[in-house]
Amino acid sequence: MKKIRIGIVGYGNLGKSTEAGIRQNPDMELVGVFTRRNPNSIHLLTEGVKAYHIEDAANMTDQIDVMVLCGGSMSDLPEQGPEFAGMFNTVDGYDTHAKIPEYFDAVDKKAKSSKKIGIISGGWDPGMFSLNRLYAEAILPEGKNYTFWGKGVSQGHSDAIRRVEGVRNAKQYTIPVEEAMERVRKGETPEFTTREKHLRECFVVAEAGADLQKIEHEIKSMPNYFADYDTIVHFITEEELERDHQGIPHGGFVFQSGKTGFHNESSHIIEYSLKLDSNPDFTANVLLAYARAAYRLNQEGQTGARSVFDIAPAYLSIKSGEELRRTLL
Amino acid sequence: MKKIRIGIVGYGNLGKSTEAGIRQNPDMELVGVFTRRNPNSIHLLTEGVKAYHIEDAANMTDQIDVMVLCGGSMSDLPEQGPEFAGMFNTVDGYDTHAKIPEYFDAVDKKAKSSKKIGIISGGWDPGMFSLNRLYAEAILPEGKNYTFWGKGVSQGHSDAIRRVEGVRNAKQYTIPVEEAMERVRKGETPEFTTREKHLRECFVVAEAGADLQKIEHEIKSMPNYFADYDTIVHFITEEELERDHQGIPHGGFVFQSGKTGFHNESSHIIEYSLKLDSNPDFTANVLLAYARAAYRLNQEGQTGARSVFDIAPAYLSIKSGEELRRTLL
Repeated sequence: MKKIRIGIVGYGNLGKSTEAGIRQNPDMELVGVFTRRNPNSIHLLTEGVKAYHIEDAANMTDQIDVMVLCGGSMSDLPEQGPEFAGMFNTVDGYDTHAKIPEYFDAVDKKAKSSKKIGIISGGWDPGMFSLNRLYAEAILPEGKNYTFWGKGVSQGHSDAIRRVEGVRNAKQYTIPVEEAMERVRKGETPEFTTREKHLRECFVVAEAGADLQKIEHEIKSMPNYFADYDTIVHFITEEELERDHQGIPHGGFVFQSGKTGFHNESSHIIEYSLKLDSNPDFTANVLLAYARAAYRLNQEGQTGARSVFDIAPAYLSIKSGEELRRTLL
Repeated sequence: MKKIRIGIVGYGNLGKSTEAGIRQNPDMELVGVFTRRNPNSIHLLTEGVKAYHIEDAANMTDQIDVMVLCGGSMSDLPEQGPEFAGMFNTVDGYDTHAKIPEYFDAVDKKAKSSKKIGIISGGWDPGMFSLNRLYAEAILPEGKNYTFWGKGVSQGHSDAIRRVEGVRNAKQYTIPVEEAMERVRKGETPEFTTREKHLRECFVVAEAGADLQKIEHEIKSMPNYFADYDTIVHFITEEELERDHQGIPHGGFVFQSGKTGFHNESSHIIEYSLKLDSNPDFTANVLLAYARAAYRLNQEGQTGARSVFDIAPAYLSIKSGEELRRTLL
């Protein structure tokens, strides 16, 4: 079997997780990692595979079937997404929800000109959660959808705390409110305020001598990030942070609560949930399943941008159509 | 907007639920119900729409875009599936798992010759549960999948009880074992016996003067249906059965428990669950979402059999691709 040749752009958490994930897919092999750093400073965990400077990618278009773009959505992907789609089949986890339509269009244009496939916004939200919203809404159109996130680490909120004066380090957990989820599970269809859906719990390492009360107040009153939530602040030592908060867990819940029947007499609840020890590992594995799809779609002659909505599930699986029908249907 | 013109074959529980479901989909209209019974004996709930004899369908191929086949998998669909796919785009909920491959091939052959689309095995299992098994396995290939059913009414098991001598009526509930699901949720990957996964609870109305002990023993020792399970038998009156057990609820759970990381150090749980007041209503709504897909695929010129695995999610939604990306991704 000819393996699908994968390249990775960016070697942060997501890039490393993608490297690990390739080993779980016997039809894939890692060709190289592409970085803006000095490639000699990077040592991959995959034997016989090396890092290249990101500019070298353009010379390797015939050696790589799919590029997994592991940069950030803020500044990397808006440039790298279209640029790489102009050379390779690509997959990415672009997650700035509000800008997805324009990002899709930018990737679409370049992927069509290069005759490649560019799959955008894989991962779990956007990604698997989006899929579940779509399926659930199509099945229960007279219904209401709820997404809850957590318990998990929000990188953005942790960063925001670190910018507060007197803070040395911090980790923020987003926690779904159990009582709110129970109401949804019971078939109620409440309108929740922001505060009613999620809690924010912060573990903060302060500089020596800092004013803890002032820090706590600044965090809790921070607009957009914390002001609309019930926020819990714990001050801990750097050692405690190291010991107890090193992981990057995450997860969440997508609910659809819907009615059917001539008189709306029957209630239905669809619930999809993820409990993830490692957010980047799971995201990487979703991207790899979609890398398989990108490769196959392009082999069929298809080109342009796609989201998870546009891809038939069978393209994600290593199994043949016949095997899928026999074993999973 | 030109509506998708739907026909329904069979007017049992599923056919009636399909009729109700069409009213939730503003892009669909019901054209007629086709039955083997005397059509004059059937009064639809949709104003201005009537029942036809099933043999009349062949003369109405230009009036119907998609036929929703609501017959049973045991004896109706093996004939009706291929037959109707030879005339119409079709959707069905064929659920004899072991025979799906040959059923797919039979529908495929006829649908290709008629240049129509035949979507088989919609519903929730097979259907939404199958989809979740596929997505989960593709994302967490080093993992284990578990399906639990219930709490819900099993028609097959209820029927089996009714065949026992001295039984006048019966309803059987399949109940997932909570402790087993909790083990899976914790990230354990146990091998369960049949008995460890599900309980069977039976509500039985006996004939006057029947030997209750004998009935209970016969039920509990019935091979395939009950012998491998912990089974609870309650004797109740016909009035109690009428009052407390008229619904057809069902549901269940699909779990994937998987590992990631270079040393399998991270655990992940994907859980999908359904809690359905009305099994036929939910199944009908899934079939209708796939009816939309069948219509669109055929409009694109595609033909042949499809399963839920072969259909990109966007085809199920009334929303455009642009709207989906903007609102659900």
